[in-house]
Amino acid sequence: MRRKAFLFFQFFNSKYMTMNFNYESLISESCKNIPRSFIREILEIAEHPDFISFAGGLPNPAYFPLEQMNKAFQKVMENDGREALQYSGSQGFLPLREFICKRYNSLYATKMCPQNIIITNGSQQALDMLGKLFINQEDPLILEKPSYLGAIQAFSAYLPDFHQVHLTENGIDLNELEDVITKTNARILYGIPNFQNPSGISYSEETRKELAILLEWHGIIFIEDDPYNEIRFEGTPLPPVFSHLPEQVIWCGSFSKMIAPGIRTGWMCAPDELIPKLLRIKQASDLQSNNLIQRVIFRFLNDNEPEEHLQKVKSAYKKQKDTMIKAIREFFPEGSVHTNPEGGMFIWLTLPDGFDTEKVIEKSLQKKVAFVPGKSFFTAEGGSRNMRLNFSNASEEIIMEGMKRLGETIKEFAPDKFVKV
Amino acid sequence: MRRKAFLFFQFFNSKYMTMNFNYESLISESCKNIPRSFIREILEIAEHPDFISFAGGLPNPAYFPLEQMNKAFQKVMENDGREALQYSGSQGFLPLREFICKRYNSLYATKMCPQNIIITNGSQQALDMLGKLFINQEDPLILEKPSYLGAIQAFSAYLPDFHQVHLTENGIDLNELEDVITKTNARILYGIPNFQNPSGISYSEETRKELAILLEWHGIIFIEDDPYNEIRFEGTPLPPVFSHLPEQVIWCGSFSKMIAPGIRTGWMCAPDELIPKLLRIKQASDLQSNNLIQRVIFRFLNDNEPEEHLQKVKSAYKKQKDTMIKAIREFFPEGSVHTNPEGGMFIWLTLPDGFDTEKVIEKSLQKKVAFVPGKSFFTAEGGSRNMRLNFSNASEEIIMEGMKRLGETIKEFAPDKFVKV
Repeated sequence: MRRKAFLFFQFFNSKYMTMNFNYESLISESCKNIPRSFIREILEIAEHPDFISFAGGLPNPAYFPLEQMNKAFQKVMENDGREALQYSGSQGFLPLREFICKRYNSLYATKMCPQNIIITNGSQQALDMLGKLFINQEDPLILEKPSYLGAIQAFSAYLPDFHQVHLTENGIDLNELEDVITKTNARILYGIPNFQNPSGISYSEETRKELAILLEWHGIIFIEDDPYNEIRFEGTPLPPVFSHLPEQVIWCGSFSKMIAPGIRTGWMCAPDELIPKLLRIKQASDLQSNNLIQRVIFRFLNDNEPEEHLQKVKSAYKKQKDTMIKAIREFFPEGSVHTNPEGGMFIWLTLPDGFDTEKVIEKSLQKKVAFVPGKSFFTAEGGSRNMRLNFSNASEEIIMEGMKRLGETIKEFAPDKFVKV
Repeated sequence: MRRKAFLFFQFFNSKYMTMNFNYESLISESCKNIPRSFIREILEIAEHPDFISFAGGLPNPAYFPLEQMNKAFQKVMENDGREALQYSGSQGFLPLREFICKRYNSLYATKMCPQNIIITNGSQQALDMLGKLFINQEDPLILEKPSYLGAIQAFSAYLPDFHQVHLTENGIDLNELEDVITKTNARILYGIPNFQNPSGISYSEETRKELAILLEWHGIIFIEDDPYNEIRFEGTPLPPVFSHLPEQVIWCGSFSKMIAPGIRTGWMCAPDELIPKLLRIKQASDLQSNNLIQRVIFRFLNDNEPEEHLQKVKSAYKKQKDTMIKAIREFFPEGSVHTNPEGGMFIWLTLPDGFDTEKVIEKSLQKKVAFVPGKSFFTAEGGSRNMRLNFSNASEEIIMEGMKRLGETIKEFAPDKFVKV
């Protein structure tokens, strides 16, 4: 048999045949379903040096442990450089997994074992892997309302049927949660009990315990995303929901805030039965996480006292948060409501009736101040009066200046102004 | 409304209620569809020091550029350490993308632009991202026969309908390919034109050009996986299929073989229209690749002559391949057929009729020699007489010893032996 296409091209020069290729018809539903990241787009704009950005979730680079990381790298290259540069196991570097267990078992009386831990590329990859593990098209999936945009993006690729449950000041609304579970038969819940992104809200101890009971009773798996637990700057540390129900909770952590995000390393702890399945997913996704960096992180953690480093970060963030709240009170319209987080990086602000933060952002970008409008954190309607404000990546002085500019911009959109015009 | 579960647990102690949790009912079809990686499982067994492994695809660590990497790291930490440890753009470090363009445009007369390149965690992540971009459940997807197991794993998660097209000694069989395209209406083809994994086969220049014509005529996107092109140790370098039809080819490369695999860094070059979609997928998967390592790689490439390093690797691999072929002729049963690759890391071997490499591997593992049975590289039936042999990660001496043991083991399974017993 002869090749039809080839024969055809013997006669016609392909240059004359070229049509605009139709890529759109090839894009999967999965890809079409992933929402834009307003945050990452803003980040690119807000990189200009005269911009003041409250949009990202960037740690303050002033506190990155450069010198200690450098020493750790040297040591890895000297002692086990060839192993560090070679392919390795998909589950991650064992001594690093052991370190994670030791640290959190002692901090929170959890009972993690290294064989239940998988090292990931930041906790974002854990979310993608868990989406792949659990979600069939149109499966119900419960999130907090509002929820982390990165999680909405990761899970969206697997085409779930999202349901959001409101947060109260003590964490997820358990009454509403139980209603939604009953109505949807959902089996998977995703949440961030410590200093939630975007709201800054934390679950109280009672909420954690009652949630564990509810999860057990209804047979629900909880994806407990916990990247901020190391940056609590006030209040009492609380054990994760995982500590109350390890067999139904997948606990996800990260070194992004404890060390630095550029190293892209996180972890998740999952029940025995799920580990082989997750490893297969990890292999299919990228074979394994960066072996070299895992060893450098382990060296860094082993040779230094992370507490020293964290203490500096936390006391700076506390001041920055307090400054931001002061600025809200001074510059923002009366009736604005904000959270007052005990850790993490974000304040969640609700403007009075009649404001629309999507209109505000257009104007505030012109004035070189960035934030994230609330809408990004909702899977359906909602968030039009909300904004997420990041306080970790700016000095107190810059915070005051940026919030002043932002407050002035917001006031230009005051509903009574619109009436007057 | 009161919480039913909570009320219930007021009366009954949860300890008495605990049942075995049914994880299985929660696993997605996607996850169930990802095949096991025989290779990664073998790797764990074959890590014992008295094992001889031809199973992995490990570069020879003797040639890892430790000292230069160390210097590059120092320099990054000194000059832009804080930027390197911070979050960064999803597309990857611009100078590294520029380096890639410059290098390959000059080597192969391609016309890549930095804005078409996305940095990934090894080329494996590119495959996962492309699966997410293109595959809806049951979409036809064409692979070579045999094909790379990692690609089968990555794509399997998106539940395609796989079709495999045989390789001839000049590359993919274009007649069969055209038949399959016509029969299935497939729009996506995945292949490895240089030193294919597992077969070692390369596409001839004519095959590349005719394939480009065929792709254009039928409106097919080609995922051109090209991790080995830097390790050609004989024959003439050939431009990628991408150079003949850039608008319909996504060209995927890797630093795993050029530098080292533990750094988990690769790239893909895709048409303009696909870049925003791929960036959204990258964000959803892990936000971005390791920023620190990207900068170290760029420093390394910029401050050193990669050719020097590559030359050492290539001349060693050539000797290792020749030794392995010598050993096949000496120790393997008459009638065994093998490929003779001009680069890469693998020889593909077909045993005579009546042999079964899945039986051989059980016995050979007992004798502490590992290889990968052919079956892993087929999406349906096939491969029972095949084995993939890796020659890059063992000295010539070890290769002779391992092949001798393997040859003896194979001969125990000779069909005439079975008849005699």
